[in-house]
Amino acid sequence: MSAPIYLDNAATSHPKPESVYQATFDALRGGGNAGRGAHRASLSADRLIFSAREALAAFFGIADSSRLIFTPNATTAINTALFGLLKPGERVVTSCMEHNAVSRPLRRLADLGVEVVKVGADQSGRVDQQRLRHACLESPTRMLVLNHCSNVNGQLQDIEGLGGFCRERNILFLLDGSQSAGSFPLDIEAEKIDLYAAPGHKNLLGPAGTGLLYVRPGLQVEPLTYGGTGANSHSDQQPEMMPERFESGTQNMVGIAGWLAAVEYLQKQNPAELRIGLERHLRQIICGLQEIEGVRVYAADSLAHQGDAVSFTVEHIDPAQIGFRLDQDFGICVRVGLHCAPEAHRTLGTYPQGTVRVSPGIFTTDDEIQKLLSAVQIICLNKG
Amino acid sequence: MSAPIYLDNAATSHPKPESVYQATFDALRGGGNAGRGAHRASLSADRLIFSAREALAAFFGIADSSRLIFTPNATTAINTALFGLLKPGERVVTSCMEHNAVSRPLRRLADLGVEVVKVGADQSGRVDQQRLRHACLESPTRMLVLNHCSNVNGQLQDIEGLGGFCRERNILFLLDGSQSAGSFPLDIEAEKIDLYAAPGHKNLLGPAGTGLLYVRPGLQVEPLTYGGTGANSHSDQQPEMMPERFESGTQNMVGIAGWLAAVEYLQKQNPAELRIGLERHLRQIICGLQEIEGVRVYAADSLAHQGDAVSFTVEHIDPAQIGFRLDQDFGICVRVGLHCAPEAHRTLGTYPQGTVRVSPGIFTTDDEIQKLLSAVQIICLNKG
Repeated sequence: MSAPIYLDNAATSHPKPESVYQATFDALRGGGNAGRGAHRASLSADRLIFSAREALAAFFGIADSSRLIFTPNATTAINTALFGLLKPGERVVTSCMEHNAVSRPLRRLADLGVEVVKVGADQSGRVDQQRLRHACLESPTRMLVLNHCSNVNGQLQDIEGLGGFCRERNILFLLDGSQSAGSFPLDIEAEKIDLYAAPGHKNLLGPAGTGLLYVRPGLQVEPLTYGGTGANSHSDQQPEMMPERFESGTQNMVGIAGWLAAVEYLQKQNPAELRIGLERHLRQIICGLQEIEGVRVYAADSLAHQGDAVSFTVEHIDPAQIGFRLDQDFGICVRVGLHCAPEAHRTLGTYPQGTVRVSPGIFTTDDEIQKLLSAVQIICLNKG
Repeated sequence: MSAPIYLDNAATSHPKPESVYQATFDALRGGGNAGRGAHRASLSADRLIFSAREALAAFFGIADSSRLIFTPNATTAINTALFGLLKPGERVVTSCMEHNAVSRPLRRLADLGVEVVKVGADQSGRVDQQRLRHACLESPTRMLVLNHCSNVNGQLQDIEGLGGFCRERNILFLLDGSQSAGSFPLDIEAEKIDLYAAPGHKNLLGPAGTGLLYVRPGLQVEPLTYGGTGANSHSDQQPEMMPERFESGTQNMVGIAGWLAAVEYLQKQNPAELRIGLERHLRQIICGLQEIEGVRVYAADSLAHQGDAVSFTVEHIDPAQIGFRLDQDFGICVRVGLHCAPEAHRTLGTYPQGTVRVSPGIFTTDDEIQKLLSAVQIICLNKG
């Protein structure tokens, strides 16, 4: 069988640019432990992490890169923001399109006495901005937590003006950029976002084991972990200094090195061109699937709001069966199930059986999508 | 100048076995996201993480590998154990030889109402076992937290019988194995250890961004982070299942792949032989340094209790100056300062100026140590 066709980029991007592999490998071979010494190997690890921080800050329109902290993944970034800010008795507004990375810590916080208010979405997963704002005003609200782009059907939420609305009312705005970071341009400071979480390994094209949390200047967050930071070693108090306050223990220097190469790769691309290419593939997937009898497609309300994930189901065939056949008979990697976002599936009407999710990346070809469409057609004709 | 001489293995081991580089690279190129799909790339990542868990469990004498959870570093493992178990009003006993990875979360917990009792050590950093046990019995105690091996002078604590003592008295025993894991053999279950934390990138020879926490069967710990685990996706409740309960978000699959290769490498070695080699180098460092006029060595109380870190100071020359000269003039990487363990330095009498720390690894040669000794001699003769 020929090489597998990878259409699961919403889980993790694959392949990565060649420079990402090289930089990761070089960092691993180079050794050294950032912030833990003053010899050359350690200094070079320090510089590398600093460069990655600066590159990512520039990529997201953040003036002070020290406000961008590295985390092992987006989940840890979200948990740091939620547990580091919300206290029992406070109120948080969120949507029904959230990933479990948001829903589960919020559920825990609800058990501890935080009031969690969930705003619904329409059939394509779009959260009505007026309803969202209304929910924030119904009662004093400490935080708004919003999924920027659904990992189930790729619906992008229109956040224009939302940051300004929150800031004027002293409501913290946490945006979960897990599925949009690297796919849609974002200027965090211009959008008045207070807290932003993203993984390195999805559309930002870095290795697994990387993530970031942006905390806007002036905002005090209690860390999730305490420990050695290589700074202020004399004290048993966690340093106040950023980013050290949130980066206890040895960092994933190897992964961050790869991530830096990935961001440098993205910066050399034309974002508009990348987007045109992705939109062409997404249109090809959506239209192609819709033409197959028995297939139902779950996509965003418009192509302009379409992230990299498109879901579908087939009448009378279980999604798991379709995924299995695509993998075994056609060598096509997609994802099936609930994608860690059960409420999003309830909204889209695909709970509890879930969907088949197709997710192209920047290296996906027209031909690979054509092969997917043919394979789904064959599976539908054979009824599984 | 010739290749640098790396004597900072206590910070992070370098170089790694060749198979570690290869496995890390293969995993990165292979793609896939563990626990996030059923296609071949994802399944292969799953198998890899499972194999690493099994290999590490076997390495440490753990029967049920699901009790071994992967963390981004040892600091996160320690924080998970401490914050997941200790409640205000409870009492914890610890030592003055702890790293900030223990002292800082304990300081935070003390601020939240946990009583923290610190037991002192002798001049070589040895914590008296009778005093430790006495401190545990003075008042009802929930947990004993102990550094197994000092990262400042390599003093190994004699923990024989300590686990049994704690278990009989219903005191939880958390051992911080950051500096001993991979250097000294350990059978976690035989020693009746309840909680054990270790990093992957030190003497276990894995890449940075890896760590583990062992939680003994039956012990309920509240997770530090909540989120998607790829399991029980339908629920907003964190799964009870181990290890998923503690592994929210995408794991550092690439680093874990390298770590697996490292453990396989270690399993192929003869541990007694490795230890004999390390002891020879440690003896060479300690005796060689002691012979240089003006040098004071801070080592363990005996070679059998000597971990991979040896500290020294030179009369009238600042440790930072020595580290700088070793690096710039001789291409030798050591570490200087407080090594994130201020109280250990107070115990050893080297606070606040700190020490120069020398730390050989399994690939260090006699010749490299000889070069270090000559360099220190020259620096001492020139007075800095």
